[in-house]
Amino acid sequence: MLVVMRSHASAEEVRAVCQRIESLGLKAHPIPGTIRTAIGITGNKGAVDLGVLESLPGVVECIPVSKPYKLVSRDAKEEDSVLRIPTPSGDVIVGGDKVALVAGPCAVESEEQVFAIAERVVRSGVRLFRGGAYKPRTSPYSFQGMGEPGLKILAKVRAKFGFGIITEAIDNESLDLVEEYADVIQIGARNMQNFSLLKRAGRAKKPVLLKRGMSATLDEFLMAAEDVLSEGNYNVMLCERGVRMVDPSHGTGKRHKVLPLSRAAIAVGADGLLVEVHHEPDKALSDGMQSILPEEFAELTREVREIAAVLHRQVN
Amino acid sequence: MLVVMRSHASAEEVRAVCQRIESLGLKAHPIPGTIRTAIGITGNKGAVDLGVLESLPGVVECIPVSKPYKLVSRDAKEEDSVLRIPTPSGDVIVGGDKVALVAGPCAVESEEQVFAIAERVVRSGVRLFRGGAYKPRTSPYSFQGMGEPGLKILAKVRAKFGFGIITEAIDNESLDLVEEYADVIQIGARNMQNFSLLKRAGRAKKPVLLKRGMSATLDEFLMAAEDVLSEGNYNVMLCERGVRMVDPSHGTGKRHKVLPLSRAAIAVGADGLLVEVHHEPDKALSDGMQSILPEEFAELTREVREIAAVLHRQVN
Amino acid sequence: MLVVMRSHASAEEVRAVCQRIESLGLKAHPIPGTIRTAIGITGNKGAVDLGVLESLPGVVECIPVSKPYKLVSRDAKEEDSVLRIPTPSGDVIVGGDKVALVAGPCAVESEEQVFAIAERVVRSGVRLFRGGAYKPRTSPYSFQGMGEPGLKILAKVRAKFGFGIITEAIDNESLDLVEEYADVIQIGARNMQNFSLLKRAGRAKKPVLLKRGMSATLDEFLMAAEDVLSEGNYNVMLCERGVRMVDPSHGTGKRHKVLPLSRAAIAVGADGLLVEVHHEPDKALSDGMQSILPEEFAELTREVREIAAVLHRQVN
Amino acid sequence: MLVVMRSHASAEEVRAVCQRIESLGLKAHPIPGTIRTAIGITGNKGAVDLGVLESLPGVVECIPVSKPYKLVSRDAKEEDSVLRIPTPSGDVIVGGDKVALVAGPCAVESEEQVFAIAERVVRSGVRLFRGGAYKPRTSPYSFQGMGEPGLKILAKVRAKFGFGIITEAIDNESLDLVEEYADVIQIGARNMQNFSLLKRAGRAKKPVLLKRGMSATLDEFLMAAEDVLSEGNYNVMLCERGVRMVDPSHGTGKRHKVLPLSRAAIAVGADGLLVEVHHEPDKALSDGMQSILPEEFAELTREVREIAAVLHRQVN
Repeated sequence: MLVVMRSHASAEEVRAVCQRIESLGLKAHPIPGTIRTAIGITGNKGAVDLGVLESLPGVVECIPVSKPYKLVSRDAKEEDSVLRIPTPSGDVIVGGDKVALVAGPCAVESEEQVFAIAERVVRSGVRLFRGGAYKPRTSPYSFQGMGEPGLKILAKVRAKFGFGIITEAIDNESLDLVEEYADVIQIGARNMQNFSLLKRAGRAKKPVLLKRGMSATLDEFLMAAEDVLSEGNYNVMLCERGVRMVDPSHGTGKRHKVLPLSRAAIAVGADGLLVEVHHEPDKALSDGMQSILPEEFAELTREVREIAAVLHRQVN
Repeated sequence: MLVVMRSHASAEEVRAVCQRIESLGLKAHPIPGTIRTAIGITGNKGAVDLGVLESLPGVVECIPVSKPYKLVSRDAKEEDSVLRIPTPSGDVIVGGDKVALVAGPCAVESEEQVFAIAERVVRSGVRLFRGGAYKPRTSPYSFQGMGEPGLKILAKVRAKFGFGIITEAIDNESLDLVEEYADVIQIGARNMQNFSLLKRAGRAKKPVLLKRGMSATLDEFLMAAEDVLSEGNYNVMLCERGVRMVDPSHGTGKRHKVLPLSRAAIAVGADGLLVEVHHEPDKALSDGMQSILPEEFAELTREVREIAAVLHRQVN
Repeated sequence: MLVVMRSHASAEEVRAVCQRIESLGLKAHPIPGTIRTAIGITGNKGAVDLGVLESLPGVVECIPVSKPYKLVSRDAKEEDSVLRIPTPSGDVIVGGDKVALVAGPCAVESEEQVFAIAERVVRSGVRLFRGGAYKPRTSPYSFQGMGEPGLKILAKVRAKFGFGIITEAIDNESLDLVEEYADVIQIGARNMQNFSLLKRAGRAKKPVLLKRGMSATLDEFLMAAEDVLSEGNYNVMLCERGVRMVDPSHGTGKRHKVLPLSRAAIAVGADGLLVEVHHEPDKALSDGMQSILPEEFAELTREVREIAAVLHRQVN
Repeated sequence: MLVVMRSHASAEEVRAVCQRIESLGLKAHPIPGTIRTAIGITGNKGAVDLGVLESLPGVVECIPVSKPYKLVSRDAKEEDSVLRIPTPSGDVIVGGDKVALVAGPCAVESEEQVFAIAERVVRSGVRLFRGGAYKPRTSPYSFQGMGEPGLKILAKVRAKFGFGIITEAIDNESLDLVEEYADVIQIGARNMQNFSLLKRAGRAKKPVLLKRGMSATLDEFLMAAEDVLSEGNYNVMLCERGVRMVDPSHGTGKRHKVLPLSRAAIAVGADGLLVEVHHEPDKALSDGMQSILPEEFAELTREVREIAAVLHRQVN
């Protein structure tokens, strides 16, 4: 934390701020400048809310220097993270020189629908399958997902094709079931600051895919991940979406933008892609507009592999 | 819904879109213009996701006309809503010619702290008291609230001063308890799209104060309220915050901005104000920076009463 | 400027950054913390772009402490500014305990229109009159303003009613004429970072009303004002608009929102209001949607006077 | 334009709106729905501001259907545009299966600096050279560019290496000179809505590179281009920047983000790249932080060529 004093602040005001800092058990480092004095603070372990210093006489503002997160910081772990997701057909690696592709429908609608899509995407070499059994829809009148029967369908497709399954949990109750049936627990963008749910995910034994809130800052996104890590679960994947790319399906909401944005995501250095595929998008119960066809997905995987190769990476 | 065709769309493409609309059980109304044709759609009850029309040949875009909400719409209830909140000291009215003031600390920290603040704000005539027992903090290392013991303290202050109590629920478990102890259930900004929590609040027997998500559009805000109403609870108050005013405390995060924004909120026509008051803000366990002192709150109520009077309204 | 080092930065890296700072003629103040070292910099007069320090080994980020503006800063002038605008009927004061009202049509359309509106608003006691002769319209096919003949109409209305005239300049050529005919030179939101125009306004002998760009940060807004002041013109009024209030007409684009937002602007502490009034808004050549009727303006002035009085201020 | 009526609107109110539409010389198409009536309007050539309909009794809102631009629309020209920029070493093509690379320093600082950089980037096959002689800096205390002497240096480098030159004009005076010396006239992001400058560029005989304003919507961006085209200059290139990618240098302001974003821009389908290169970025008079080194630029061109090839395109 750095406390910036007014240019007209008196020596006494500077002294009073320093004393207040020391009284909080911290150390004050005054830096007198030509125009104004700034006061550096060290020794803060995040336990004290220093914002109150801003109301002391002579103070212009308090500038935070340390980040509020610890475990997700490069200070705690300097190198890039590489995740290993166990699946029935062996581990899938996310990060390092490996890129992971996840494909499947937005929502689980029926066993027929899920198997029809699974049969098609498996041909492109995909090993992680997605599909929502719980849908956090903005309208209470929209399809809300099949619930546990949907999870059972995903379990069948998992057994049949050897996929790892990624599916969303929307509250503590559904997270219990998702943890039981799936290989990766997804936390959606609208729940990115549902701290009760994040803490429950932190106590889960499965990796977590955390989507960025539509307008979340990077710090807020990392703090949400910190919530999961602080409970003991260190296997967290961060997934961009919203106005920013990398969840190309939800990021644009337009089918014809999925392919170019998928290429761009890999070109910019993403470790993976989460793509909605549906064999009959016009009949999809949710997000049909942004689902691509299996043959478009095959083209996507071809181009993405070539671009990954330019960066010396392989899709797995 | 209005479907806009390309200027170069053929008559056949227009016909195909109309047929598709009719095949969905709806009615198509082609409007041929000088440059392009648009096609109006009627008969849609929200059951069909018309976005898929956007991928038909010759279509430029689909413009939604109907709003996705029903119960919160002026179509369902044309006049302004007036809420009645039962409290031990009689009903408090929100809306119409009545303005409601809610005051109290950000967080319940101890019985001493809550009573010290209650004794002070009651002198300004406040009849609704706030204080958080569950705090959805962005950092897992910050004070998370006292939980049920905090609710018990609020119950005591309610019995002693005759206040109605407003306090936040952060998941289904805490909502059960808040419904039992408090008079109004608060849903915080970060949970504005926690649909599981909204539906639970919709089954509660107490009024709901719903805060607007930091970047929520008006339609998203209204849809969140719709979620509550759709389960049967029609007593919902909408509370602005974030980059927009009317929760002056959280809206700015700066103590000296609370008074001018409170005046502005009433001047612009708000039905109430939710203000954080603390007798020792420097020692507050959360949000001390934006809490005002009891004597500042007394000045606030004076000015707010005068401005309400310009609009022919009374504070109650 | 504060340079934040990585937690793993070596002593040598810290030393190298300090040496680099000193080599730029500045002073380095290392502040060793428990996790990382930060380095304060003093002696910078804005001549050196310190961003390059960010690419030195071991550096995480550079946090600016000093603001980039000088003349508009409270460091240069601590007290609130009070402007005095000479008009044919005596000075109008903006600031301190005085609030100024500016009214008139969006665009000057004809002598008849301008006089019809002037006759009506003068009855509400307005002494500053607005009306655009140069219109920076987003469409090249919209009415672009009357140009100099429009300025001549404003000069007539000035002579007849004793108004001070505020009107917009859109390039160096039009600014020459506006400076000649008007009492206040307006720079519109879209030209807020037209630095060539700002510098020309800085050499003008008349006060400048500078509108905030639609998404300009406060620092960008102040830097635009700094551009005017740096050329010698210290009489600058800052005018909010866009997503923020205080130019209630352009701020909302909706006629029925002008009154409540005008009340809120005065309640929050604004020094003045700029309101579009038109006696026949349906026939207005531009911005008819947001112009209010003269009788609505009379009601606005009444309410605004009463709210100003709550703050112990008078409208002049 | 579509006029949406309240659900409670009377038949008389609908009739009155239709009559008003017809009185404006347009045609009204009422579409009665189950909940409300909407009224389509045809025959509008952009001459009438239909917003005034919004204030008629019974109207909820007016939804624009036609876009405000004409010449830049796919209605006027359905196929993708391909630009041809004449240079001393032959034409450079932008669009179709050709991608164009533009490189050079942010600002022209001296003949030595410009030649040092030119010698290096020409080795990567670059044929379009950039460098600012007029710098629209946010601070009046920053380097403002060399002016015409800077343009003369660019003319020399043009003659020596056969480059086409792209450089920015900031007002009508500088545009006269830029048109004389350069091959492409750049309009910067902060001038995107400087309509006076746009119109002057529209009367120029050289192609225009128009940068998107930092928060401009796509429609505003296209309207700015329309301003140029409406004066007769159809050779306009649109350049993304700001929070969006494709001007990788100014888009991020961070040197190490230039390479990944350049790859992403080509992967997503951009027709060209504008990159700041400096052989001594630490000494650059402006934007040193975001300039890359010549050897980094060489790597960038290699990767960009490979990614373009995945899309069956060639860099020229």
